[in-house]
Amino acid sequence: MSNVYHEHRYANGLQLLVEPMSWCRSAAFTFLVPAGVSREPATAPGCANLVASLLTRGAGSRDSRQLSNDLDNLGIQRHEATETIHTSFTAATLADNLEPCLTITRDIMRSPHLHADQLELCKASTLQELMAIEDDPGQKIFIELKRHSLPEPLGRPILGSAEGVQRMTPEMIVDFHRRCFRPNGAILGVAGNVDFERIRDIIGELFDDWKPIDEPPFSVAQRHGSRQHVPAEKLQTHIGLAFDSVSYSDADFYNAHGAVGVLSGGMSSRLWTEVREKRGLCYSVGASYHPLKDRGIILVYASSSSDRANETLEVIFAELERLLLGISDDEVHRLQAGLKSSLIMQEESTSARASVLARSWYHLGRVRPFDEIAREIEAMTPESILGYLERHPPGNFNILTLGPTPLEASA
Amino acid sequence: MSNVYHEHRYANGLQLLVEPMSWCRSAAFTFLVPAGVSREPATAPGCANLVASLLTRGAGSRDSRQLSNDLDNLGIQRHEATETIHTSFTAATLADNLEPCLTITRDIMRSPHLHADQLELCKASTLQELMAIEDDPGQKIFIELKRHSLPEPLGRPILGSAEGVQRMTPEMIVDFHRRCFRPNGAILGVAGNVDFERIRDIIGELFDDWKPIDEPPFSVAQRHGSRQHVPAEKLQTHIGLAFDSVSYSDADFYNAHGAVGVLSGGMSSRLWTEVREKRGLCYSVGASYHPLKDRGIILVYASSSSDRANETLEVIFAELERLLLGISDDEVHRLQAGLKSSLIMQEESTSARASVLARSWYHLGRVRPFDEIAREIEAMTPESILGYLERHPPGNFNILTLGPTPLEASA
Repeated sequence: MSNVYHEHRYANGLQLLVEPMSWCRSAAFTFLVPAGVSREPATAPGCANLVASLLTRGAGSRDSRQLSNDLDNLGIQRHEATETIHTSFTAATLADNLEPCLTITRDIMRSPHLHADQLELCKASTLQELMAIEDDPGQKIFIELKRHSLPEPLGRPILGSAEGVQRMTPEMIVDFHRRCFRPNGAILGVAGNVDFERIRDIIGELFDDWKPIDEPPFSVAQRHGSRQHVPAEKLQTHIGLAFDSVSYSDADFYNAHGAVGVLSGGMSSRLWTEVREKRGLCYSVGASYHPLKDRGIILVYASSSSDRANETLEVIFAELERLLLGISDDEVHRLQAGLKSSLIMQEESTSARASVLARSWYHLGRVRPFDEIAREIEAMTPESILGYLERHPPGNFNILTLGPTPLEASA
Repeated sequence: MSNVYHEHRYANGLQLLVEPMSWCRSAAFTFLVPAGVSREPATAPGCANLVASLLTRGAGSRDSRQLSNDLDNLGIQRHEATETIHTSFTAATLADNLEPCLTITRDIMRSPHLHADQLELCKASTLQELMAIEDDPGQKIFIELKRHSLPEPLGRPILGSAEGVQRMTPEMIVDFHRRCFRPNGAILGVAGNVDFERIRDIIGELFDDWKPIDEPPFSVAQRHGSRQHVPAEKLQTHIGLAFDSVSYSDADFYNAHGAVGVLSGGMSSRLWTEVREKRGLCYSVGASYHPLKDRGIILVYASSSSDRANETLEVIFAELERLLLGISDDEVHRLQAGLKSSLIMQEESTSARASVLARSWYHLGRVRPFDEIAREIEAMTPESILGYLERHPPGNFNILTLGPTPLEASA
């Protein structure tokens, strides 16, 4: 078992990455197209997600019904997701079914029908999804925290807004598709029981006539600290907290992972131990690191009954402060064990590898080899993580609470 | 790549199943112990889950902190879950770390400390978890639907009740552990880069002195239809519906999967098409088949804004009725493609295989070989699925709604 990848860039800018995994019978791909919410016109929030929903409702020679039938006939486990930067298409199936799946994917990307009557149906089910989020505080807090902690256009909610969705016209949909579904900036990662040359030739044939379109880069403002409370008649208060970290390509990438791991990686981590195990304040508590291309952000989340939420937030602040006071060798060893184990698991899954290929390429213009990642994990020390924390100390927080009453605790 | 498993039953009744997957670097296990909620005394709802939470808070020579540290040091991705019949322990890590992980697991199972002060902390975080469920209608409807559709003791909520948790004493905890953590009825499935003889000998040494305990089988009443509404000030009405199906060992097992697949397997399925794609009534809609040892149940779920919820339920009833009127060859082909594809994916994951080994053994006393499953999937026809539906027509429903007002639609 060894993970070696091949790469090819087509004349129109489309980037292909292929990792043959000959011991598997499955194959998977992740196709990233630069059509995320950050590319929406400010006047059309929700546009990217509606386009993604419409793509499979008729494309090329197939109407909506035929398209669904043909995709299901190939036994494809697939998903379209609107993200901040990209719209992603992921699929996994038997390796033998990969080629017909890619052929249909070509139609979905390049010649979706985007019919007005289908748009109305997509709008209706998106409005239902927006209502479901309003009823689910655990989802809503993350969407609102993203909006508060990432400046325009990075913080936009994936579904847009009910008003935006209601106002959407077929023209806005067609325009977004024409502008954002382009080969320059698109990345296709394929992993599984496949042959590189064969995939390269097929993708070449399928996407050869896709014309690049210039798209100006967007600029993003600085993040500003904030504190907001969303009143909601719930039993629990949901707490979200965000602060700056580093980008995917930063030399401190692994140290940022390390700092978040000390806080929240495994049951021996500090937040888990201090908030849940020692005090029983919460069931859910954790931190996560979200590297983007030009920045990174760390999110902390907890939910606790309203009488214990203030203490929960106090303990979180205390733990963020304590991070800078020192990290033990043992903590770093545990982190390293967890990261190495995750790395090996990922190496065994065609879907996970396809995703890593495409996403690493977007961030780095290359895919980090297994040995390099293993070396970087090995090189982590308490000092290297503390060095990162001194360069990027937790602070200037976005603090968001959702529940019956605002909290008083402060950093 | 081929999936061949080995089995061994120890003198005390513990059942071992091992599937070597030599092309992997990871190993995983699923350990089922007959300590699910169905084994709780009726006076101690929540007992099973509290015991599962306490197991990792000190065991053998390790206190809570040392235990967390040592498990994280092995890079283990692990999870304890209380289920209806079992408490399950799942873990995945590097194959090299499997043996020390099993050694610690022995202590967790056999000699947990179950300290009174740790119990109080577990009670506090469980009460938080119960509150989080009250705030999340999408979770709550499934818990309530299970309670209404599966008779005692199968329908019990995993977390018990707030009153039950508050009342729990250290004596009740110790008694449940002593009675239910026993080798007869326990099943360990291991898959990954492992050697069968070696695992067999290690498990033999670790669990040799575990004494079997007789436990009378429990009897379960018949299911009765019901209709209930839970008033809740939400934007959406959540709809849950349950009806009888067949057990895991039934000759109709694959046909039951097939019937649910026609309703809800993939984007061409009937519920997806009729409720979401054609009418835009919902974002979430689906059906799932839950085979148990002596019975099976099919659950249907949807959530829709309160003004469209009644139509949603009407369409669901109409689709259940239409199932009996006929199924096309094309629908069965699509189902078969999806099932075959899932089968291949599962075969490539050590965690998935470990789970299948243990759970198949519980239900069947054997593990269905890949070729047999592939043959059964191939053998499905519209007639075989219709035959199943005629023997077990959807009806005698448990209907549960949660939202602002009750619905009027009826079957």
